[in-house]
Amino acid sequence: MTKIIDPWGAGIPEEYSKIIKDFGLETFNEKQFPNPNRLMRRKIIFAGRDLTQISEAMKNNKKFYVLSGIMPTADKVHFGTKMVVEQIRYFQEQGATAYILVADLEAEATRGIPVEEGKRRALNFHIPTYIALGLDPKKTRFYFQSENITVMKLAYEFANKITLNEFKAIYGNADPSRIMSALTQAGDILYPQLLFLNKKEKMPGIIPVGIDQDPHIRLTRDIVARTKSRYGFVPPASIYHKFMPSLDGDVKMSKSKPDSGLDLPEDPASIKRKINRAVTGGRVTLEEHRRLGAEVEKDMVFELLKQHLVEDDSELDRIYKDYKSGKMLSGEIKQLAIDKLNLFMEDFNKKFEKAKKEVDNIEFLKF
Amino acid sequence: MTKIIDPWGAGIPEEYSKIIKDFGLETFNEKQFPNPNRLMRRKIIFAGRDLTQISEAMKNNKKFYVLSGIMPTADKVHFGTKMVVEQIRYFQEQGATAYILVADLEAEATRGIPVEEGKRRALNFHIPTYIALGLDPKKTRFYFQSENITVMKLAYEFANKITLNEFKAIYGNADPSRIMSALTQAGDILYPQLLFLNKKEKMPGIIPVGIDQDPHIRLTRDIVARTKSRYGFVPPASIYHKFMPSLDGDVKMSKSKPDSGLDLPEDPASIKRKINRAVTGGRVTLEEHRRLGAEVEKDMVFELLKQHLVEDDSELDRIYKDYKSGKMLSGEIKQLAIDKLNLFMEDFNKKFEKAKKEVDNIEFLKF
Repeated sequence: MTKIIDPWGAGIPEEYSKIIKDFGLETFNEKQFPNPNRLMRRKIIFAGRDLTQISEAMKNNKKFYVLSGIMPTADKVHFGTKMVVEQIRYFQEQGATAYILVADLEAEATRGIPVEEGKRRALNFHIPTYIALGLDPKKTRFYFQSENITVMKLAYEFANKITLNEFKAIYGNADPSRIMSALTQAGDILYPQLLFLNKKEKMPGIIPVGIDQDPHIRLTRDIVARTKSRYGFVPPASIYHKFMPSLDGDVKMSKSKPDSGLDLPEDPASIKRKINRAVTGGRVTLEEHRRLGAEVEKDMVFELLKQHLVEDDSELDRIYKDYKSGKMLSGEIKQLAIDKLNLFMEDFNKKFEKAKKEVDNIEFLKF
Repeated sequence: MTKIIDPWGAGIPEEYSKIIKDFGLETFNEKQFPNPNRLMRRKIIFAGRDLTQISEAMKNNKKFYVLSGIMPTADKVHFGTKMVVEQIRYFQEQGATAYILVADLEAEATRGIPVEEGKRRALNFHIPTYIALGLDPKKTRFYFQSENITVMKLAYEFANKITLNEFKAIYGNADPSRIMSALTQAGDILYPQLLFLNKKEKMPGIIPVGIDQDPHIRLTRDIVARTKSRYGFVPPASIYHKFMPSLDGDVKMSKSKPDSGLDLPEDPASIKRKINRAVTGGRVTLEEHRRLGAEVEKDMVFELLKQHLVEDDSELDRIYKDYKSGKMLSGEIKQLAIDKLNLFMEDFNKKFEKAKKEVDNIEFLKF
């Protein structure tokens, strides 16, 4: 693979540098981890907290875990979910035990989805989707929040470690459903460590998140500090990925503008429609485009190729150069993305059908 | 039994009339219920909500339940707990199924008592105490909050039915631990109805509380209204008892002044000390006392006799008249209370030891 310095404008843009500073994060350096994946190499993963404890665990073959939650609210997910699963997969390959919890209690509290309905959706859709996206079910421990009495006990205990004002400072608001959800998430995040509490060797864990989920990490780290005498948890490490940009050029995909984001699954007709409406960096006239080249940094379709659809760095580099120079047109970039998305979805659908059968073999954690 | 109109100043004092008006309660009328007990006859029970549905259930031999919680924070309880158990006992005798929950999650959230420790205390102390005070374990369903996953699910669901500001309006403050506890209590209160949801015949329930616990009842009734389409719960009825007055003359016993209140159990030496220090209605000199008689309404020891220690109305009436007329001295009232308390404690201790053995036979609800 060609080694390219700051390829395709993939440095850390100013707004992310500001986030790193404001949130007190570490800038992610892909040299820190072995075999960095596409997201790491391209700085789509841009920051973290406490990453050394994880890189040390990997280096020394020590136990560690990666944890993520499934919010079973709909029968489709944001395409960006792929990014989260790829990170889990990466850590699984580096030796982590993955914990995937179905946040059925949170779905009930925050979205009014009955717990039984949430469970059904997770089994029929979300878990097979995660497996189809690369999650290794053999290295994964799955559970439903609504069955994990231990997590609930932790949530009740944590409730008296945080004041309402601290909640407001961390989350901006503090609705009852948000408070219960957040405390339960803190319970989920620390739960895998319970078996290691009285052991000499602790088990660190890493949580892949978007920056909008950092409040949960901060809350959990505060709770770790305040329950030190009783538990001695290791503070959770976290790793932050950039938002998948909205196809209309906004920072983040929005549910209120359905055509601005891709889902999983997505059919060929809507792929075509959404990609063709996307904001690109193409120039107004063909003559101008050939002369000036594309404004690649503004091009949401190129961003999609970079984040998700082109695995090989040399191939991406070639596309970047051809587009930047004006040799490639925005229509061609769009068609490339459409073709690649269709291939991806075809493959995904096959894997999804296969994964649905595997769900029956999963032994969910019992409590 | 002699029928006495407004005996021993046992009408509803002005401060309680104000509470009834301010809280929108019904004034309790002991004629509403069959075989009114001592607390009802003496208007120590002074108010309620939705009592007709309970009196109708009793009259028509329909199913209903009475529910109360044990907060397992200490290895002794306030003497006033006797009052709550007597009410549960009363409703059991009138046909109710009693639900007694051990609020081990709340003890964890609000007082930092580890769940396992709370369970231990409930089994070794609180449950035998309730049985010794008259609870019929055969007509009682016991459970631990920390094992009742259904209650927890309800709590999560209820979390999005109430805003933070509504919480503040109901409770005055809204700390995270209070929010979680309150929503769990609402879950506990409605939980016994779950089996009756789709039946034609609903099961109403009644909760005996002090007025300081009315916020939980209001919260639960709001939740009932807001979950109508999904559940169709019957709003909980409630019944309110006066506070057991502090021996130093304050409205309510206070934990910050240990000698102002009696506990269960209590040894003879501390009974003697506490009663002898109590505020009485005795006059300053013997001559004055004989001439004017005692100010019985200010006498905390007489209040203790009335609320707890003298079952027979005629006996209480005789004491009242002798004290009011100056024939009986405050020292004699105190000695009477000390003697009765010692007898009570002796009997209680015996019953407690017996009850401890019965705890092993209790089949706690499993989930």
